[in-house]
Amino acid sequence: MKKLQEVPTWQDIQETHEAIKPMIHRTPVLSCQSINEITGAELFFKCENFQKIGAFKMRGASSAALRLTAEEKAKGLATHSSGNHAQAVALSAKLLGVPAYIVMPDTSPQIKKNATAGYGAEITECENTLAARESTLAAVVERTGATFIHPYDDYAVIAGQATTAKELMEDVTDLDIILSPVGGGGLMSGTALTSKYMSDQIIVYGGEPKRVDDAARSVAAGHLVANERIDTIADGLRTNLSERTFAIIQDKVDKIFTVSEEAIINAMRLTWERMKIIIEPSCAVPLAVVMTYPSYFEGKKVGLILTGGNVDLGKLPF
Amino acid sequence: MKKLQEVPTWQDIQETHEAIKPMIHRTPVLSCQSINEITGAELFFKCENFQKIGAFKMRGASSAALRLTAEEKAKGLATHSSGNHAQAVALSAKLLGVPAYIVMPDTSPQIKKNATAGYGAEITECENTLAARESTLAAVVERTGATFIHPYDDYAVIAGQATTAKELMEDVTDLDIILSPVGGGGLMSGTALTSKYMSDQIIVYGGEPKRVDDAARSVAAGHLVANERIDTIADGLRTNLSERTFAIIQDKVDKIFTVSEEAIINAMRLTWERMKIIIEPSCAVPLAVVMTYPSYFEGKKVGLILTGGNVDLGKLPF
Repeated sequence: MKKLQEVPTWQDIQETHEAIKPMIHRTPVLSCQSINEITGAELFFKCENFQKIGAFKMRGASSAALRLTAEEKAKGLATHSSGNHAQAVALSAKLLGVPAYIVMPDTSPQIKKNATAGYGAEITECENTLAARESTLAAVVERTGATFIHPYDDYAVIAGQATTAKELMEDVTDLDIILSPVGGGGLMSGTALTSKYMSDQIIVYGGEPKRVDDAARSVAAGHLVANERIDTIADGLRTNLSERTFAIIQDKVDKIFTVSEEAIINAMRLTWERMKIIIEPSCAVPLAVVMTYPSYFEGKKVGLILTGGNVDLGKLPF
Repeated sequence: MKKLQEVPTWQDIQETHEAIKPMIHRTPVLSCQSINEITGAELFFKCENFQKIGAFKMRGASSAALRLTAEEKAKGLATHSSGNHAQAVALSAKLLGVPAYIVMPDTSPQIKKNATAGYGAEITECENTLAARESTLAAVVERTGATFIHPYDDYAVIAGQATTAKELMEDVTDLDIILSPVGGGGLMSGTALTSKYMSDQIIVYGGEPKRVDDAARSVAAGHLVANERIDTIADGLRTNLSERTFAIIQDKVDKIFTVSEEAIINAMRLTWERMKIIIEPSCAVPLAVVMTYPSYFEGKKVGLILTGGNVDLGKLPF
């Protein structure tokens, strides 16, 4: 596949989907009568918690990995990540038969370290600061010649994440609204691109925790604004938007909603209790948005992306 | 539908399935590559945790309710249950537009009381002894004229539970083994009937906690033997077999395996972590059997019934 230097076109996203199909699951879309009754909306949950490695990140990582040249692939893939992106890069490398080098903060949950190592990746631990992660990664790349795969500031990754909404909109063809959580913005920008390519009617909303509302504030300010704190339970959404993801979000996303920690925990618990599926706090955010701002959603057909299911069962918020 | 005075025939089970279809979900059959790798078997999980009311009990209760005469229905349905059967009777009554009267021990999990009341049932609380449950139920039936629906010692209920294995074997047509947990024996006997009606090759195993091994001991003794303790985490399996269920199990089940509490908790956790679905401790028993007795299952295609997903999230064993 060709490398992507610009915002992915619809054809880029379609080609990406065909290329990554052997490396991903087509995940199911579930609905839940009792949550529909509670919210007054018709909700369709795209279950990326059932994706390989337990999260949508597999789509973006495999899209980026497949675009490397044979020579680049041979030297391996590298990234720094405390979570799902680490596993996604590790499994992509395993499936391609090449090395993976993952820099992880020493505070990462054991379950994520084990899973990453289980895919055969070489893990280098570092302090849990961005500076330590970047300098450790730079040393690993210097030593190995591996290619750094950014978790979101990369059009190849965005094109991969964009395939999530493509499958959802293929399965439910008449959605009024699509709703994605926003962290670094890879999924959000990919979702917005696909939605607007596939429909000129659909409304695209984002959701993020109030405590890490950089996307809402960046859109309001018209330029990138960073988070001032990261103490949200939604650990997948603590990152800031990048230039690439912000530009797409500013252009294509109709509105970003913010929700409280309590609303996230309530939505997570409701999903566990009623749908009997395990979702991470980060992917409870879309349902929390529906429950916090009901007037936007009542009577509508709403697609929600459940981004992942990797939870440390020893540290639940309830 | 006709009342069932004898062991359900294959035609009875087929008719039951057609009749209850509007009252149940056809639940999915899931598989999990990483658990297959761990066990060396090819496992197919029938997800009754996604069933209405969150458990297979909806099948048996609706089968029994639909067999009542118009006059009996009008007076309502009654039962005593601390859990899923209570919700199943309550929802069956709601769907038929008739009253439900449920006797529940005052120690029942709040989530189960709430759910039962949420279906419009009248709940009568009593002490958590079998004597108190039976005398309280007798008073309720005396007062209302409602019909008692036994959780398992009833051929109509057994015929309903038997539809679980029917769907599983329709979806996966070449299973070598089918494996069900054993509590009162309604699901186990229904599973055994269906399996042997649909295949003359399939092996039918049961699994129960070592601490409540009445089924294994009853089969060994050749007559009903009661549990001497009920302190298992698998709260759905604390009941004793009945005459009706024991007779079928003795005739049709190839072997009953017993597993430790630790094996149950490990299997439950593995299912949550790898499959991202919520299952009750009771339905971790089949996977615990596969992991405790691997030589019976390696290289085989094995159907496992995941019976329910109603867990008190405030009281997890991990």
